[in-house]
Amino acid sequence: MGPGPSNPYPEVTAALAGPLLGHLDPAFLAVLDETMDRLRTVFGTRNPLTLPVSGTGSAGMEAAFVNLVHPGDVVVVGVNGLFGQRMVEVARRHGADVVEVLAPWGKPLDPGSLLAAHPDPAILAVVHAETSTGVRNEIAPLGAGKGGALLLVDCVTSLGGIEVAVDDWGVDVAYSGTQKCLGVPPGLAPLTVSPRAGGRLVERPSSWYLDLQLLSQYVTAGRGGGRVYHHTAPVAMVAALHAGLGALLDEGLSASWERHAECGALLQDGLRKMGLELFAADGHRLPQLTTVTVPDELPAGLDEAGVRRLLLERYGIEIGGGAGELAGRVWRIGCMGHTARRRNVLALLGALAEVLGR
Amino acid sequence: MGPGPSNPYPEVTAALAGPLLGHLDPAFLAVLDETMDRLRTVFGTRNPLTLPVSGTGSAGMEAAFVNLVHPGDVVVVGVNGLFGQRMVEVARRHGADVVEVLAPWGKPLDPGSLLAAHPDPAILAVVHAETSTGVRNEIAPLGAGKGGALLLVDCVTSLGGIEVAVDDWGVDVAYSGTQKCLGVPPGLAPLTVSPRAGGRLVERPSSWYLDLQLLSQYVTAGRGGGRVYHHTAPVAMVAALHAGLGALLDEGLSASWERHAECGALLQDGLRKMGLELFAADGHRLPQLTTVTVPDELPAGLDEAGVRRLLLERYGIEIGGGAGELAGRVWRIGCMGHTARRRNVLALLGALAEVLGR
Repeated sequence: MGPGPSNPYPEVTAALAGPLLGHLDPAFLAVLDETMDRLRTVFGTRNPLTLPVSGTGSAGMEAAFVNLVHPGDVVVVGVNGLFGQRMVEVARRHGADVVEVLAPWGKPLDPGSLLAAHPDPAILAVVHAETSTGVRNEIAPLGAGKGGALLLVDCVTSLGGIEVAVDDWGVDVAYSGTQKCLGVPPGLAPLTVSPRAGGRLVERPSSWYLDLQLLSQYVTAGRGGGRVYHHTAPVAMVAALHAGLGALLDEGLSASWERHAECGALLQDGLRKMGLELFAADGHRLPQLTTVTVPDELPAGLDEAGVRRLLLERYGIEIGGGAGELAGRVWRIGCMGHTARRRNVLALLGALAEVLGR
Repeated sequence: MGPGPSNPYPEVTAALAGPLLGHLDPAFLAVLDETMDRLRTVFGTRNPLTLPVSGTGSAGMEAAFVNLVHPGDVVVVGVNGLFGQRMVEVARRHGADVVEVLAPWGKPLDPGSLLAAHPDPAILAVVHAETSTGVRNEIAPLGAGKGGALLLVDCVTSLGGIEVAVDDWGVDVAYSGTQKCLGVPPGLAPLTVSPRAGGRLVERPSSWYLDLQLLSQYVTAGRGGGRVYHHTAPVAMVAALHAGLGALLDEGLSASWERHAECGALLQDGLRKMGLELFAADGHRLPQLTTVTVPDELPAGLDEAGVRRLLLERYGIEIGGGAGELAGRVWRIGCMGHTARRRNVLALLGALAEVLGR
């Protein structure tokens, strides 16, 4: 129950233990094609260029920026947590002229401020679900008001756990990770690119490994003709993602959102009843990632990290500490993917109450 | 029996199906530490900076160049196959002034020509085992004669299958992939960096994801103090690599090299007895990756790809086609990791004899 990785769905574990296929085996290519179809459904998009990038969520972020930032491009980035800060750093390394729009950690970004930050940015970039703070940022108003800019959204912690509607919201580039609400181990970064963004790809970006034009010749050319080998696809992880998306879609996307919402509410109510304070702003709290302020008074002999250690050692439950400027100040409790079950929430609440003596 | 992925060791499959740990869980960090120790043994090095990069072998190549090429650096690259060509492309994208030293595909590079190609290169880069041709290039003479240059070696297909001796040979940077002779699915790139190369790392390279200075704070700082979170480690694949290296070291490195040598000899003798021609130059043939010239005469109704399709459909055996300029001209037969067993070689030889009517 940390901020990810979550526990994998049983179907995912079974897929990981299945026979390994070659990356050009027709049977594997069928799995890959179906995985990309499933990703389109989960992202809410018809974008042909929708694929699992062969790296973790941060590789998805890098793929987005390295393929879309032309040197000197103005990129407006919303920053109200660690992953917004990371976007700034990654965009700058790829030559962007970054305009930061800040909000305090724990509060949502103001869409109006983002849209007003520059008269004509090339890219507007925002984290949908800030894993460092538990805050949900609004995306739809940005798509409505983006004008000529491309809208680039980090959906690492949101995808599968709360609504993501790439096409309806006017998102041009979105990426995610597998280890949060998709219930798959970390290692792949689902990525989707609108045709509009596809027309603005950097020719020969600095990264060969993440070059979307080369990648697209392997992942999509195969429907009619041949596939062009680029790198050896991480076949076991793709099979795992295929299985995880299958479990998610068998349950139904909105049923999954509902389950995450229920578990999040159960958890947050329980924490409040224990006298603990939720850190993220009311109305913008993520159900799948809850931040709790570490209380001033802890039982004798225990500090913030000691509470987490005890939960892990005595109950086998992992929760996360704070990251970045929240280090030592909050706990982060994940309720994502297969982990988002009432039984897990109740076990954590019971264990935490015992440890804190509340 | 294609050019990779090979079949995983049973211990690897079991590890993939085991419980998933958090990337900051002390139990996982112990697995990661031991994985890095095992990698040092397999690479033949004491380099502290030895880690699994979170991407496939090509991410290892990119990590090597993006962290070591300073704009305008002269990089001498040996090119006698597809992966030498890839090195040229990747080095150029990161600003290198590349000097190519060519040898015909199927022949080894001449170490003297590589050493004489430029009076003072920053980097000498060579593929140890060319997966596209089945040729082994000599590394030791390059380390002996490199002078002030850094020696950067692609060990994707060599590591675990033939001798690799990073420290003894004077290699400064080596990377590999998990899906060849290590018997683990694709998805990680073992990488090792000498202290000498560590002193020449690019400050703030264009890639944030592959920035070795940031990565090293997560993978190595933990021995005494804290680990600095960078990205979520691909924990399932690290557990798989840990198990694969365990299987390899339980057998013994030199026993594994011997097994690969035996299987390669059995295969290559068998192919010759069938009247087929081996493509790679005698004396530089890899045991783990054999290239065979596609015969002019094939049974009626079969072409090069048809032979491979029949092997896959009728016998469940995958072999590879030619890549790059060898497309359609050779078959590539892998005998790597857990796949390198006499029974597999004999099954392939029997099946191929049936299909070719020889």
